[in-house]
Amino acid sequence: MKTPSSLDFLTESLRRLPGVGPKSAQRMAFHLMQHDREGALQLGRALSQAAERVRHCAMCNTFTEREICEVCLDGERNPELLCVVETPGDQLMIEQTLTYKGLYFVLMGRLSPLDGIGPRDIHLEKLITRATDGVVKEVVLATNFTNEGEATAHYISETLKARGLKVSRLARGVPVGGELEYVDAGTIARAMLDRRTT
Amino acid sequence: MKTPSSLDFLTESLRRLPGVGPKSAQRMAFHLMQHDREGALQLGRALSQAAERVRHCAMCNTFTEREICEVCLDGERNPELLCVVETPGDQLMIEQTLTYKGLYFVLMGRLSPLDGIGPRDIHLEKLITRATDGVVKEVVLATNFTNEGEATAHYISETLKARGLKVSRLARGVPVGGELEYVDAGTIARAMLDRRTT
Ligand SMILES: [Zn+2]
Ligand SMILES: [Zn+2]
Repeated sequence: MKTPSSLDFLTESLRRLPGVGPKSAQRMAFHLMQHDREGALQLGRALSQAAERVRHCAMCNTFTEREICEVCLDGERNPELLCVVETPGDQLMIEQTLTYKGLYFVLMGRLSPLDGIGPRDIHLEKLITRATDGVVKEVVLATNFTNEGEATAHYISETLKARGLKVSRLARGVPVGGELEYVDAGTIARAMLDRRTT
Repeated sequence: MKTPSSLDFLTESLRRLPGVGPKSAQRMAFHLMQHDREGALQLGRALSQAAERVRHCAMCNTFTEREICEVCLDGERNPELLCVVETPGDQLMIEQTLTYKGLYFVLMGRLSPLDGIGPRDIHLEKLITRATDGVVKEVVLATNFTNEGEATAHYISETLKARGLKVSRLARGVPVGGELEYVDAGTIARAMLDRRTT
């Protein structure tokens, strides 16, 4: 007995999503075919569109559909402050605290030698170029307070201090081992105000 | 601060998948954009293809790309036996027991009055037409042994017996409250051999 090949292909393709195993891929495929074909078509369009249109901001490296993202183009922000985060989700969390009015650099990852993720994967050259533009005065490291996030912060700190930049780190108001995305905004706000030079 | 609209659209569309909340939709979208654009494009194609091509077998109601599915066209099978299951996944489980050589009807659901799922939603008219074709002699009810599956079996049994058909039910080798998909093949095999007339 064979299931139709386009259904097999769909089930198999759904497994490309993180956290989706064979059973849940099958359930998703059946659900879409049985109850939500419009949803399947919409998701199909969304995937193609995003894969075609989304690229990285030339300045801060975050996802954008333009050459330079809206945040980097915002003239109201303090261009002397550059906050380094791991992901766009972390950036969003910091924005929500309303304690920071500078610019950002999004690493899109963290150093993780065991997983083969080195300085190139977190766009370190791009960060160095950005941070040494002559306008940035202080780099605020807001990577996660996990082992990998701390190691990433340390590595970036050493690299940028060697180039004469002032580098600070969010204060340890963030619980050790915690991930920014899951911490309440109040804690992040305190940590932003208490940030210390490294 | 705004994330690019095609990324928002993707995150929103991923929530059409069952079991995917806002946080995991965002993680999936970021993962695809950051690490697997080819996967995003492939899944996009798979969704469009499946939504266009997959339809219901005119005989057994399961998913197929043809008018009649391969199982229904298989001349080696006993056309006097018709096994009724809730989903294609349940049918697959029964096939794997190698104890059944008849044909199938796939309800694509189960009766669930509380959720507003009535006889029309489980294609009861199509099942009646199929079962009363003059060839089928016995209908084997293999819906799940949950409350809803039992109620569905009871309802179908009454309906088909009123039309003079022999109706049997998988024996209670399947644990009460259990779902076929999660039961081992040996148990299902025993239940198939011990099926009883209802
Ligand atoms: Zn930017
Ligand atoms: Zn069929």
